[in-house]
Amino acid sequence: MTLKFGVVGTGAIGREHIKRITNTLSGGKIVAVTDVNQESAKQTVEQFGLDAVVYPDDKTLVKDENVDAVLVTSWGPAHEQTVLAAIEAGKYVFCEKPLATTAEGCMRIVEAEIKHGKRLVQVGFMRRYDRGYMQMKEAIDSGFIGAPLMIKAAHRNPTVDEKYTTEMAVVDTLIHEIDCLHWLVNDDYKSVQVVYPRKTKYALAHLQDPQLFTIETQGGIVINVEVFVNCRFGYDIQCEVIGEDGVVTLPEPLSIGFRKEAKLGTNLLMDWKDRFIDAYDVELQDFMDSIKKTGEPNGPTAWDGYIAAVTADVCVKAQQTGEKELITLQERPAFYSENAICTTV
Amino acid sequence: MTLKFGVVGTGAIGREHIKRITNTLSGGKIVAVTDVNQESAKQTVEQFGLDAVVYPDDKTLVKDENVDAVLVTSWGPAHEQTVLAAIEAGKYVFCEKPLATTAEGCMRIVEAEIKHGKRLVQVGFMRRYDRGYMQMKEAIDSGFIGAPLMIKAAHRNPTVDEKYTTEMAVVDTLIHEIDCLHWLVNDDYKSVQVVYPRKTKYALAHLQDPQLFTIETQGGIVINVEVFVNCRFGYDIQCEVIGEDGVVTLPEPLSIGFRKEAKLGTNLLMDWKDRFIDAYDVELQDFMDSIKKTGEPNGPTAWDGYIAAVTADVCVKAQQTGEKELITLQERPAFYSENAICTTV
Amino acid sequence: MTLKFGVVGTGAIGREHIKRITNTLSGGKIVAVTDVNQESAKQTVEQFGLDAVVYPDDKTLVKDENVDAVLVTSWGPAHEQTVLAAIEAGKYVFCEKPLATTAEGCMRIVEAEIKHGKRLVQVGFMRRYDRGYMQMKEAIDSGFIGAPLMIKAAHRNPTVDEKYTTEMAVVDTLIHEIDCLHWLVNDDYKSVQVVYPRKTKYALAHLQDPQLFTIETQGGIVINVEVFVNCRFGYDIQCEVIGEDGVVTLPEPLSIGFRKEAKLGTNLLMDWKDRFIDAYDVELQDFMDSIKKTGEPNGPTAWDGYIAAVTADVCVKAQQTGEKELITLQERPAFYSENAICTTV
Amino acid sequence: MTLKFGVVGTGAIGREHIKRITNTLSGGKIVAVTDVNQESAKQTVEQFGLDAVVYPDDKTLVKDENVDAVLVTSWGPAHEQTVLAAIEAGKYVFCEKPLATTAEGCMRIVEAEIKHGKRLVQVGFMRRYDRGYMQMKEAIDSGFIGAPLMIKAAHRNPTVDEKYTTEMAVVDTLIHEIDCLHWLVNDDYKSVQVVYPRKTKYALAHLQDPQLFTIETQGGIVINVEVFVNCRFGYDIQCEVIGEDGVVTLPEPLSIGFRKEAKLGTNLLMDWKDRFIDAYDVELQDFMDSIKKTGEPNGPTAWDGYIAAVTADVCVKAQQTGEKELITLQERPAFYSENAICTTV
Repeated sequence: MTLKFGVVGTGAIGREHIKRITNTLSGGKIVAVTDVNQESAKQTVEQFGLDAVVYPDDKTLVKDENVDAVLVTSWGPAHEQTVLAAIEAGKYVFCEKPLATTAEGCMRIVEAEIKHGKRLVQVGFMRRYDRGYMQMKEAIDSGFIGAPLMIKAAHRNPTVDEKYTTEMAVVDTLIHEIDCLHWLVNDDYKSVQVVYPRKTKYALAHLQDPQLFTIETQGGIVINVEVFVNCRFGYDIQCEVIGEDGVVTLPEPLSIGFRKEAKLGTNLLMDWKDRFIDAYDVELQDFMDSIKKTGEPNGPTAWDGYIAAVTADVCVKAQQTGEKELITLQERPAFYSENAICTTV
Repeated sequence: MTLKFGVVGTGAIGREHIKRITNTLSGGKIVAVTDVNQESAKQTVEQFGLDAVVYPDDKTLVKDENVDAVLVTSWGPAHEQTVLAAIEAGKYVFCEKPLATTAEGCMRIVEAEIKHGKRLVQVGFMRRYDRGYMQMKEAIDSGFIGAPLMIKAAHRNPTVDEKYTTEMAVVDTLIHEIDCLHWLVNDDYKSVQVVYPRKTKYALAHLQDPQLFTIETQGGIVINVEVFVNCRFGYDIQCEVIGEDGVVTLPEPLSIGFRKEAKLGTNLLMDWKDRFIDAYDVELQDFMDSIKKTGEPNGPTAWDGYIAAVTADVCVKAQQTGEKELITLQERPAFYSENAICTTV
Repeated sequence: MTLKFGVVGTGAIGREHIKRITNTLSGGKIVAVTDVNQESAKQTVEQFGLDAVVYPDDKTLVKDENVDAVLVTSWGPAHEQTVLAAIEAGKYVFCEKPLATTAEGCMRIVEAEIKHGKRLVQVGFMRRYDRGYMQMKEAIDSGFIGAPLMIKAAHRNPTVDEKYTTEMAVVDTLIHEIDCLHWLVNDDYKSVQVVYPRKTKYALAHLQDPQLFTIETQGGIVINVEVFVNCRFGYDIQCEVIGEDGVVTLPEPLSIGFRKEAKLGTNLLMDWKDRFIDAYDVELQDFMDSIKKTGEPNGPTAWDGYIAAVTADVCVKAQQTGEKELITLQERPAFYSENAICTTV
Repeated sequence: MTLKFGVVGTGAIGREHIKRITNTLSGGKIVAVTDVNQESAKQTVEQFGLDAVVYPDDKTLVKDENVDAVLVTSWGPAHEQTVLAAIEAGKYVFCEKPLATTAEGCMRIVEAEIKHGKRLVQVGFMRRYDRGYMQMKEAIDSGFIGAPLMIKAAHRNPTVDEKYTTEMAVVDTLIHEIDCLHWLVNDDYKSVQVVYPRKTKYALAHLQDPQLFTIETQGGIVINVEVFVNCRFGYDIQCEVIGEDGVVTLPEPLSIGFRKEAKLGTNLLMDWKDRFIDAYDVELQDFMDSIKKTGEPNGPTAWDGYIAAVTADVCVKAQQTGEKELITLQERPAFYSENAICTTV
């Protein structure tokens, strides 16, 4: 059985996923595409030799009976409408982050999905499919470190371009930790405070860099996350969870060791695209496999998308006030009875 | 374009590859199977829901016009005949090790392939597709460590069963280093000598364990390989290449770090199946991709299969004599103008 | 030339230093001792076979013309009086932390020393003499990581006894980071805020454990220090300094590696006494050597003692208020023109 | 009690030890010196401000009643005569390697010491006092890895000068492993074979570099030692002992970690003098402490000096023949009932 995808948005990330489904993964097929730039949609069909219909817009695409699942890779502000249309049509949805650009938008999707009666939507937070995070999750869930008390994380990029703003440190960068860390420790966020260290000379005038976020959970876990997007030395993702009985740490990316010129070491990645490349494959394969096995996707839910949206909003507010700001979520619907867990992988 | 496989041998490794091609990788399909145990062949078709013809034997299977490539996963002594038949029929061949059980058998395959005029055969040495080895190869080829002078390797299993013999330390275990190490340094073997250290108490009476192989190459590189198949602590593959300007080392498998009970550490694998699981996927995907792109497979060649067979024979002889034994290869045919290199991955 | 010590306080730490000077280091000699418990003083002389006068109190001991330097290892509240008396007598002083129990007391010592006209006092903050911290200091001072922006530190003990209080997390534990970190980055503290994560089940009812301190410097460096004194797994000191151009990290204590039972790792210390044992030797040797070479000690100054006292006071206040509390130091006297630096070691 | 040293040989290593005893360690004092170059002896006394008699030769120095222990740091060929004279005079001896330049010379010393009736002589093999080796020894002796089966070692220098010969790879370099490894596993050597890998371009014409030694012990342990003295990248000492139940590994020298310019790593030493600098201190302190406590030195014995001399001779022979050469020791005298063990450290 092949899962037939309609793709909404044929920009860079859309084409990446199309290539992945077409050339690397098993069990999926692109049967329809659309883009606000119709030329881009047509070129994409040609580029990958797809046997796919080019639709004028998302509304018509989601109605194609041949489409089982809608891959949403348009620009963020367009996501909500496509996702709602897809749910309306009873189609599965794999939606790149953000699920919607507002908490209210996410909530509308949540409500639509609940109304539909079974899970259709998966949000493209790929870190939960990273081997290192999955091992951490498994260790924590198994009780290996006892109850988690603290998390120390860092999200470092070698450099960013001049379009990157202070707020994007939350919306584009921290957003991955926002999704990943509550999942890692099965907890909900309660508050956040931001401190700005001395600014690196490599940051442009308009940008605060680095930034330090202190996030507390309902269960009392304190999370420190450093976001440092002009760190120069590499794309570097750190995560350490300290529990009552021990500590677990995210592994460094696999790389050969060397001894040379008075140094003993290993290589760091410079490009974020390389860091979670396997996770992208695994998340999409799991989306397809899980739907085939259970009739529902298994990854980050619409509710996770809502959590991310609410939390990101408060983090941005905290950037501006410098105060501890409360993160207030609506009550978790029974429909999303627990954190999304990648149990099948 | 889908590469259509006929599978000869539906035992454990055969079914693994069938599952891989069917459920994980992209661009391949099983269209025919056979096994000396016809019941096994039929069950396999059923188990994976294949749309595949069950043939009574390899000879008929290779003639099926629908079959593009033959996957040889029968027991070793049967490989040669199937590979020769497939070449005769002009089919691609992915053959699990050994290519043939004798150097002469390998040479017959080499000659058949040369006669055919283009590369058809890839031997299932998967280490060349392991990310760590590939990074080492890339570093060495780039001149990062200068000319290689020495290699230190270890191949350790936690335990083996009572059927494992001293000779299998070469034929089943060292064989992977035999294939991988000459490729890593672009050199040919010249001699081998074996020393038996004190035997571990965990080895059964009939088995020498550990064993130390000293292999010299034509270019003067000295390779020490430890084979230790009752090492208890893990499945542990080590490789260090020492060059004129530095050293590169195979990374440990990716695993979370921990601090617990006065230890700082990481986990080792206990099961060899987990170590190269990604490499198995990558090698078969590359087999399919390379054929699509270039019309030829790109991985270990029939000539590499011949090198492995000759070298393994001499290693077994060296086990028995304790002396330095010469490894004499026929001249490399121009057809195999260089070591097989996984350039597309 | 031998530096002749009079020791005030012959409890555990006093005897350790006496043993060190007598049996391990070079150039020092114990010639006088005193203790409020005279019996302890006498036993100490006997235990180490010292050729030393037992004095009834610190006042008489410091006046002994034979005494070059006073080693203050009495209990904290008694330090100030002894140090002042020693300065009055023109004697060198090696004073275990705290220099005095109040900021005012420290300031009185600072003023006395300035009045005396040359440096006499060294405070027993030994971390500056730890090889790892010294390498970090050297790297930072050399510009290797550019301007420091953040520090992440952890001070973890496996367990503490029931007498350990929340306040002692500052006064006994964090105090070492307080002294060490401003020295490491050549900066002064500006504010501190404390957050209490969920409490470990291993902490007694009266104790907050762990605690997270966020300290900002005048130069804008943000320092996160975790104090976790029932961490179970080891005595574990972590320090990472993130600069504009790179990161440096405190090394783990030297320990053999192992592979055993599916683990690859190394050993952690369980006893804090083992962690800085070399640093204790180096600091006292440097105290003696520096006085011989330059006529003044070279380690942490009375001003450093004052900084530690003020900062600790504010940290304790911050524990109680939960707010960001300002750290206000008097202006650094020209007499202490720069951070104490261990340049001779 | 102070151990009074007479020093024979005031070259570089002699002065190092004089400085160590005078300025760093506790319990020793230089009271007499001599050197074939009398001017050097006099300058040394002046340089360190020693209160020491300058003797015209070793014979008169050893007879000085004020001398408790003779520190032999002359050139190798002179060692035997001084050591024998010192034993004759009933003086303790700390003799830098070699104890004597021939096995026969070493045996004469052994016989003299046995005749004297108690241990007087310690040979300056400092590795046994290195913290890493001591931890390995302790782990092995405790049974942590079960019975040792193999050792893999490397002794790498960044570069050597043009006076360094192929034979010196044994006599100056491998000699440290020769002493250290039999001690580590409580075993005696049985045979050695040498293989020369391809020569590095950085080695001068007259020098084989690298060299690989395979040494077998009476107990069947197989030891591979790489000697590579133009390895460029650092002074690098590796040692891994593989046992029936696990592996232990010598730690890298303590050094800060860094992240910079796409590398994660730590620093390697470039100068051999830095590697065992602590061990030099510890060995001499132990020599003094042990004599004070037990009346005998506790470190490497004259018998260990004999073992080193015999083994080195056979290693040099093996360099020349390329064959496996037998190492034949005389029977260990009951006087040296076990390997020298540094139990007091």
